[in-house]
Amino acid sequence: MKPISIGICGLGTVGYGSFCVLENNGGEIARRLGREIVVSHIATRSIKEHQHIGEVKVSQDLMAVADDPEVDIVLELIGGYDLAKELVLRAISNGKHVVTANKALIAVHGNEIFAAAKKKNVVVAYEAAVAGGIPIIKALREGLAANQIQWLAGIINGTGNFILSEMGDKGSEFANVLKQAQELGYAEADPTFDVEGIDAAHKLTILAAIAFGIPLQFDKAYTEGISNITIEDIRYAEELGYRIKHLGIARKSDKGIELRVHPTLISKDTLIANVNGVMNAVMVQGDAVGPTLYYGAGAGAQATASAVVADIIDVARMISNPENCVPPLAFQEDCLSDAPILPISEIISAYYLRVVAKDKAGVLSDITEILGDFNINIEAVIQKEPRVHDVEQNLSVVILTDEIKESVMNTAVEKIEALNAIGGKVARIRMDRLED
Amino acid sequence: MKPISIGICGLGTVGYGSFCVLENNGGEIARRLGREIVVSHIATRSIKEHQHIGEVKVSQDLMAVADDPEVDIVLELIGGYDLAKELVLRAISNGKHVVTANKALIAVHGNEIFAAAKKKNVVVAYEAAVAGGIPIIKALREGLAANQIQWLAGIINGTGNFILSEMGDKGSEFANVLKQAQELGYAEADPTFDVEGIDAAHKLTILAAIAFGIPLQFDKAYTEGISNITIEDIRYAEELGYRIKHLGIARKSDKGIELRVHPTLISKDTLIANVNGVMNAVMVQGDAVGPTLYYGAGAGAQATASAVVADIIDVARMISNPENCVPPLAFQEDCLSDAPILPISEIISAYYLRVVAKDKAGVLSDITEILGDFNINIEAVIQKEPRVHDVEQNLSVVILTDEIKESVMNTAVEKIEALNAIGGKVARIRMDRLED
Repeated sequence: MKPISIGICGLGTVGYGSFCVLENNGGEIARRLGREIVVSHIATRSIKEHQHIGEVKVSQDLMAVADDPEVDIVLELIGGYDLAKELVLRAISNGKHVVTANKALIAVHGNEIFAAAKKKNVVVAYEAAVAGGIPIIKALREGLAANQIQWLAGIINGTGNFILSEMGDKGSEFANVLKQAQELGYAEADPTFDVEGIDAAHKLTILAAIAFGIPLQFDKAYTEGISNITIEDIRYAEELGYRIKHLGIARKSDKGIELRVHPTLISKDTLIANVNGVMNAVMVQGDAVGPTLYYGAGAGAQATASAVVADIIDVARMISNPENCVPPLAFQEDCLSDAPILPISEIISAYYLRVVAKDKAGVLSDITEILGDFNINIEAVIQKEPRVHDVEQNLSVVILTDEIKESVMNTAVEKIEALNAIGGKVARIRMDRLED
Repeated sequence: MKPISIGICGLGTVGYGSFCVLENNGGEIARRLGREIVVSHIATRSIKEHQHIGEVKVSQDLMAVADDPEVDIVLELIGGYDLAKELVLRAISNGKHVVTANKALIAVHGNEIFAAAKKKNVVVAYEAAVAGGIPIIKALREGLAANQIQWLAGIINGTGNFILSEMGDKGSEFANVLKQAQELGYAEADPTFDVEGIDAAHKLTILAAIAFGIPLQFDKAYTEGISNITIEDIRYAEELGYRIKHLGIARKSDKGIELRVHPTLISKDTLIANVNGVMNAVMVQGDAVGPTLYYGAGAGAQATASAVVADIIDVARMISNPENCVPPLAFQEDCLSDAPILPISEIISAYYLRVVAKDKAGVLSDITEILGDFNINIEAVIQKEPRVHDVEQNLSVVILTDEIKESVMNTAVEKIEALNAIGGKVARIRMDRLED
């Protein structure tokens, strides 16, 4: 089967990010899809020095991509309203499918764009428009399709969340943190869209439409920014058991639908109150499923590209496969890998060890000597005195170790258990940093 | 178009839950799908008193449903291995699509079942098999399809997480909490599957297969339970900055794939360390998207039914629509609702108010009198003395109110701002309980 051909319009952060994800993960993606995806045409004003696009055809004219008969799917990654709309409608009128990351375009012109797409029987996919790499559009449109959605609440602007998190952590006022966010590249020179909640309102408009089955109505969203939040408010809220988050909230009631973006006090015991920095999260309450939460990076080249390329794969599957089945194990049956499952003895892990010892001088040094013999580094030690009512006067020694192969730890633990001063088994629990 | 016809095999908790979700949300589902879904045949040994299934045909014989020519999709909700496998293979051989919530069946016999389904060109969907209502199978198979998945780690057994959470919160030993969990119906009379990690290993086997593109290999999963975890371990871990969670971890390395379920110390600052009680969560690290997390109810009639019915909708869409498009705004274009978006003045909310006042006796009573006049209840008050270096000797009064309509609050705030003792604007932030 001939590869699916992609035209990229706009080679900025997300455009080049999407190019790179398609390049780097092309093998893995073909193993899922059963078909190659290639970028055949890119429209950009200029190729930057760090951008390596090989032999791909480049045009200065966006419309050249929309008109290219070779291109199956057009990526609209230029942002903004008018030109983006013109481009998307042109691609649609040429019978091409479109993938976009443009929340403003969808929130404001989506009704018109989707109507045009329906007439031409093409797809306009927009997972990347909301919450970056988090597959929240898919979760709402498909994963939770059995539910009547009751409400959703999201941290859907990373800049705003970074500012509020930093104000809380550092005790620094809004204006100072905004300046820092601008220096870090988290906030634009003109931060209005982010800090006044307009960007979040675009995204909320989209989420509310697909949650409740209503048209896109950005003009009716209530929007209030975070520029008036003070350190004092954050501290008093904390004192009372709350965090201040800039939330987009959509809720269905008997009277109608609430659609509002504003700073909100939420209990600090909720999971979403603990989403910090530039990360995004969306809570969704369905009548059957109850509360669910989706968390991840809301921006960034690679994370946004993850959603753009997921949309490409969905559309490519629809074009390729008359029954549009996702393979049961995600990858094509004849492409499964025979990578071995490692035995537990081969695992590398850090460990928590708890050793119960008779309260005897030297036991700690005996243990650390054994660990040292096996090149097991110690990260932390707590030595707990015997409990008052413990007639045996047992001492607990708790040790956190550095990473080591499990088979090595097994032998070390055996040696420790063989020490005279040790009464019984060493309690051993693996640790995980949950990082790469 | 004639409705999609469902046959339910097994009318236990999940079976009846799925029946109820299809009944209760049938209108909303048809608005999404553009087609009705009806339950036409149920196989169950007995209908319990609380189960109301109307006029639906009932058989004692499971195979009668698998053989029923009227049925398009068979729900396998009987659990277990042998009979479930026989039923599923029979339905497949009859050319029927299957939806199952049976993690044990998929983890152990999935390779064989999927091969049979491929031959007959039917779908076997199993979103409900892992993490109940959380659409994690869809997220991994589709939402994150652009990524090379590096690792995933999940709290995928609610019983185990409840036990560890309770041990930590109440300082109660494993055996006592297990007994309590059994009384609450969270744990089975024979809790082995849950507390020894077998159930989690079934689920992990499935997640690892679809994350890495490997066959299902339950027999190679390493499984260690939580029955040896003591209160002391939980306390020492906490002291060192960690929580103990019963995690399923799958990680890809150069040497092979790790597939292991065991108690694990993780930093208490991570989001997943704060997932408590019977809730489930899965963290997934993709090379493009970075870390993401999916949270929700991992069990329960309605939550599991949410996933079963989402699968039904996916399969029904594939049967119905030659191009299998999800509508752009989730619901059919001609079924969008005209529910009004409420103006912000109509919103009901609780409020945080911060009033800066000259340090003057009586100002608090003036404020509370105004709030009282508008029937605004006060939930909490903090009165902050002037700062030492504040020459104006301003007093801050922070008030949390009960829920009230925004338009009423607006008027009350205007009155407060008009008080002589008040200097300037009242800072006002809405609160949200993030509950129904």
